[in-house]
Amino acid sequence: MLIVMHHSAQQREIEQVRAAVQAMGLRAEPIPGSERTAIGVLGNQGYVEDSTIRNLPGVREVIHVSKPYKLVSRDFHPESTLVTVGSVVIGAGKPTVVMAGPCSVESEEQMMASAAEVKQAGAHILRGGAFKPRTGPHSFQGLGVEGLKLLRQAGDAVNMPVVTEVMRIGQIDDVCRYADMLQIGARNMQNFDLLKEVGKLDHPVLLKRGMSATIEEFLAAAEYILAEGNQRLVLCERGIRTFERATRNTLDLSVVPLVRQLSHLPIIVDPSHATGVRSLVPVMSKAALVAGAHGLMIEVHHDPERALCDGAQSLDGPAFAQLMTELQGLQNFLSSTSVTMGM
Amino acid sequence: MLIVMHHSAQQREIEQVRAAVQAMGLRAEPIPGSERTAIGVLGNQGYVEDSTIRNLPGVREVIHVSKPYKLVSRDFHPESTLVTVGSVVIGAGKPTVVMAGPCSVESEEQMMASAAEVKQAGAHILRGGAFKPRTGPHSFQGLGVEGLKLLRQAGDAVNMPVVTEVMRIGQIDDVCRYADMLQIGARNMQNFDLLKEVGKLDHPVLLKRGMSATIEEFLAAAEYILAEGNQRLVLCERGIRTFERATRNTLDLSVVPLVRQLSHLPIIVDPSHATGVRSLVPVMSKAALVAGAHGLMIEVHHDPERALCDGAQSLDGPAFAQLMTELQGLQNFLSSTSVTMGM
Amino acid sequence: MLIVMHHSAQQREIEQVRAAVQAMGLRAEPIPGSERTAIGVLGNQGYVEDSTIRNLPGVREVIHVSKPYKLVSRDFHPESTLVTVGSVVIGAGKPTVVMAGPCSVESEEQMMASAAEVKQAGAHILRGGAFKPRTGPHSFQGLGVEGLKLLRQAGDAVNMPVVTEVMRIGQIDDVCRYADMLQIGARNMQNFDLLKEVGKLDHPVLLKRGMSATIEEFLAAAEYILAEGNQRLVLCERGIRTFERATRNTLDLSVVPLVRQLSHLPIIVDPSHATGVRSLVPVMSKAALVAGAHGLMIEVHHDPERALCDGAQSLDGPAFAQLMTELQGLQNFLSSTSVTMGM
Amino acid sequence: MLIVMHHSAQQREIEQVRAAVQAMGLRAEPIPGSERTAIGVLGNQGYVEDSTIRNLPGVREVIHVSKPYKLVSRDFHPESTLVTVGSVVIGAGKPTVVMAGPCSVESEEQMMASAAEVKQAGAHILRGGAFKPRTGPHSFQGLGVEGLKLLRQAGDAVNMPVVTEVMRIGQIDDVCRYADMLQIGARNMQNFDLLKEVGKLDHPVLLKRGMSATIEEFLAAAEYILAEGNQRLVLCERGIRTFERATRNTLDLSVVPLVRQLSHLPIIVDPSHATGVRSLVPVMSKAALVAGAHGLMIEVHHDPERALCDGAQSLDGPAFAQLMTELQGLQNFLSSTSVTMGM
Repeated sequence: MLIVMHHSAQQREIEQVRAAVQAMGLRAEPIPGSERTAIGVLGNQGYVEDSTIRNLPGVREVIHVSKPYKLVSRDFHPESTLVTVGSVVIGAGKPTVVMAGPCSVESEEQMMASAAEVKQAGAHILRGGAFKPRTGPHSFQGLGVEGLKLLRQAGDAVNMPVVTEVMRIGQIDDVCRYADMLQIGARNMQNFDLLKEVGKLDHPVLLKRGMSATIEEFLAAAEYILAEGNQRLVLCERGIRTFERATRNTLDLSVVPLVRQLSHLPIIVDPSHATGVRSLVPVMSKAALVAGAHGLMIEVHHDPERALCDGAQSLDGPAFAQLMTELQGLQNFLSSTSVTMGM
Repeated sequence: MLIVMHHSAQQREIEQVRAAVQAMGLRAEPIPGSERTAIGVLGNQGYVEDSTIRNLPGVREVIHVSKPYKLVSRDFHPESTLVTVGSVVIGAGKPTVVMAGPCSVESEEQMMASAAEVKQAGAHILRGGAFKPRTGPHSFQGLGVEGLKLLRQAGDAVNMPVVTEVMRIGQIDDVCRYADMLQIGARNMQNFDLLKEVGKLDHPVLLKRGMSATIEEFLAAAEYILAEGNQRLVLCERGIRTFERATRNTLDLSVVPLVRQLSHLPIIVDPSHATGVRSLVPVMSKAALVAGAHGLMIEVHHDPERALCDGAQSLDGPAFAQLMTELQGLQNFLSSTSVTMGM
Repeated sequence: MLIVMHHSAQQREIEQVRAAVQAMGLRAEPIPGSERTAIGVLGNQGYVEDSTIRNLPGVREVIHVSKPYKLVSRDFHPESTLVTVGSVVIGAGKPTVVMAGPCSVESEEQMMASAAEVKQAGAHILRGGAFKPRTGPHSFQGLGVEGLKLLRQAGDAVNMPVVTEVMRIGQIDDVCRYADMLQIGARNMQNFDLLKEVGKLDHPVLLKRGMSATIEEFLAAAEYILAEGNQRLVLCERGIRTFERATRNTLDLSVVPLVRQLSHLPIIVDPSHATGVRSLVPVMSKAALVAGAHGLMIEVHHDPERALCDGAQSLDGPAFAQLMTELQGLQNFLSSTSVTMGM
Repeated sequence: MLIVMHHSAQQREIEQVRAAVQAMGLRAEPIPGSERTAIGVLGNQGYVEDSTIRNLPGVREVIHVSKPYKLVSRDFHPESTLVTVGSVVIGAGKPTVVMAGPCSVESEEQMMASAAEVKQAGAHILRGGAFKPRTGPHSFQGLGVEGLKLLRQAGDAVNMPVVTEVMRIGQIDDVCRYADMLQIGARNMQNFDLLKEVGKLDHPVLLKRGMSATIEEFLAAAEYILAEGNQRLVLCERGIRTFERATRNTLDLSVVPLVRQLSHLPIIVDPSHATGVRSLVPVMSKAALVAGAHGLMIEVHHDPERALCDGAQSLDGPAFAQLMTELQGLQNFLSSTSVTMGM
């Protein structure tokens, strides 16, 4: 931590800050400059609460050097983590994992048809929402436990592990019973109680980045899960909120190589929610692959025009099959060359 | 809903859209223009899912005219709603309500001292967090139920109703037992399950705007609560996330008169979280009052330098007392003139 | 400047950084910590280019303590600056200055009518655009020099100084001939050549904050003008771009007290462009006054329904007169009390 | 244009709107709905100013269907435009064009060395800034005309066309004399006078997207250039400003396929400015290629540690050569397959 004093700070104010730092059990090292004095804080084992410092007279700014996460950091855990979901392995050095399926589980027919399509096309994990977070209460809210059962049934039919969103603590048991991987949605990225609870499980978790979460906050949210003991965590970039409205969100693809540098956890990309535009999904999927994503999550519906949610961003079966072929070709090319994709 | 066709859309594509609209039980009214055709959709009772339309061939854009909320809208409920918390009334035509107290409940001494200070200064409702949402898991997380009891005890000692945050469904019973008003924090604004549960209560609720929530999404979140039957809802602007970092968030004060136009619900302002800077809190409190806020929520700590959270934005007792005097004067002036403040 | 090394940085990497700092004629002071080493840089006279440091092996982050501005800073110039425009004085301790008039100069009749109205209501400076920055080339672009003449004529008729926008260097002479104050628009806040040129004048300048400019960038742009010698500068907050679209921009009112702390320059607020919504202009004008704005810039049109630009955010004469009465009352109240408004 | 009336709008208000529309020479078509009436406006040849409508009594919202651009739109110009710079052709179906070189021209030695390096590695166009837009006035501002000459000389020495930024109208002649392509920087994207002037030239232009420009505004800025007659325009995505600070800007890669759908103009990507982080440049270059970019602009410095600007995001020669090899391999793969990259 670095404490920057005002240009006009008095010596006794500097002394007062030094005393406050020492009262916290830390060392203070004044660094006099030509314009102002800064005070380096030494000896902390991690992120330090700055409340007691920030408002002392003469203090202009407090700058943190330590990050609010440690367990997720590659600094302290250099080897990349691999996460296993059923028989599928996600992470560095492994083939890109594709999670595909409809936005929401709507019916047995729909799930069986979608599951068959995505399996046939080569997807690895089946997705489908049973509990749906919707902006307004008058939209379709999902089938609930009935949806979980249909998802499980469809996954079993095609021999694929399944991933689905859990929205609240009370749903965890049901979701664990029927699903192989639990998804925490973007709106719940800072639902800390939910994070703590899934952190106590042995189930793999997929944590989506919040709509306006910085990378630092994203990794700090992941820290909640690891801090409870669950290391089976996969991160997911799904677009952030910006001023641009031509796409549903703004896909922040640079986060992929950046997270790979900062953390040992795998990171995948959801181009469907990030763009919200069907015609952009295939091309951004391929770009994500090249950017180093360890996986993709893609909305596929056997009949998008009749989808109860997110039809506008869902691929139909043939479009998804075409994309899978292209992804496979691209991946073969990447692994056949010595070029360093991702990082 | 208005469906805008591509410049080059064919007549049969227009017919296909019209048929799709009719299949939804609605009427389609083509409006031919010089450059392109648009199709008006009539007969809907509210917001219409556009998935089945947006991806039909020839469709360029779907524009919604209806909003994803109705119960909170002033259009359908012209009289302003008043919300009662204990003996305090919040809403149009009533004196500004000030909720004040520390960020988090830390100890009996702290709560009793802070409560005495804010009561003495003229605050109406005592605030204090027992369950704290923190970015990282290594920060102080609040005292939990013990904190609720201390908050209640302090409120009783000074005869003030108390408000505190509820972070998850499992805490609702405890919070209702000890608090007069439940706060839903910014990070939980789209925790829809939590919204539904507090919507079933008869307790008053304070709903904070999410960090990156549009006004439309904010009101749609409020709609979740009203849709379950609870009309005792107060909204709270607490700053939004933008590119600016000189303040913790960007206080969006225009939202106050705008929400007063769009909705019948009361709206208050939290300048402490919005700015994150102690020296800005008093001036922005006064600006909020003039902007038409029905209340303020202000962090006050009897000893900010020793606060376990948010000390940097907390006022101490004397500064808060000074602010209350100024707010009272300003309010007396506003009500003594015929000028139309707020709206 | 503080250089933060990686957790795993080697001693020789630390030495290499120290050598690079010394090669820049500065001192390097390593601050060893429990997790990593940081290196304080001392001896710089202002902002230091970090390119040569940032990419050295082992460097994780470079943190700047100095700001890219100095002349505009209150740190080095504690007394507030007053700016005179004609006989009007803008700045701390002076009555709020109101600049009012139409978005664009359209005709002699319009300007004479608008000028009479705003003068009658008590405005101090007449505004009107002759050169108009419009998003698309097919919108009305302003009357040019002819507009300048009409603006001057109207100002003279009512005995008010006039302010108008200059969009490019080639227009400076004409604008100086006819106007008392030059406005640099938001889109030109980082048109550095234009800033330098107006910095060489003795005319007062009004610099609007760019749509996505941080406060630091805003003050650095102001530094360009002061660095060329022109001290007659007034800043103007006019809303920033965020994700919210219910208003044209998001009025960042906290910037007013913040700029008053950081800089000695006066700052005014333009609620018309900030909100883009006529019904919000009066209330936000009053809020700006209370926030400490030294002035307001308000669009007024004698017939907004026929305005060639920005009619939707323009007040008509009676509404503006009503607002001026309210502002006067509010200001009288503020100066009659001992309360510390603004700062 | 669609005019949405308030729920409670009266019949006479609807009539008044209809009359106002007709007074503009357009047709008004009321569309009564269950909750409110909307009024379709027909007969306009493009974007309509809505000021005269938006504030009529009973009007709640005005929704534009037409866009503020037409000449740049693929709707009206379906064939992709190819832009020739020297002997290099940029656009659909052509090999990716790589523009490379230092951020700023610093010296003859530097330019000759950098030019030789990028030429050797296979770049097509040499870049280098002679006029530099810098946030603060105390940073290096470029060599000016002397820099232009050095750039030209270096380009001639390696037989490459050169591109450089023009910051103001007064520089156009000089830049045209020495450079093959003029760059309009992000800060000048809405410097409309500059756009108009370069629109009158026959020189090719590279227009960078503004930091907070929507795609619609970006294309409307391009419209200024085409409207003056210059069709030789290439667009460039260089990152937008968001709340995220881990990267210098947020690279909005989805804009590439989106612009390819909306416009016939070529679009390239600048990963150096978009990320601001050297280690992210190669991977995001490859992602941009896969996203369909017609070209890349990459900062390369023969000695980044000594660069006077943007050293932190510049590749050195060997890293650039390695990237070019990888890009070539990737491009060969893409063109050898039948897969549809980009669109």
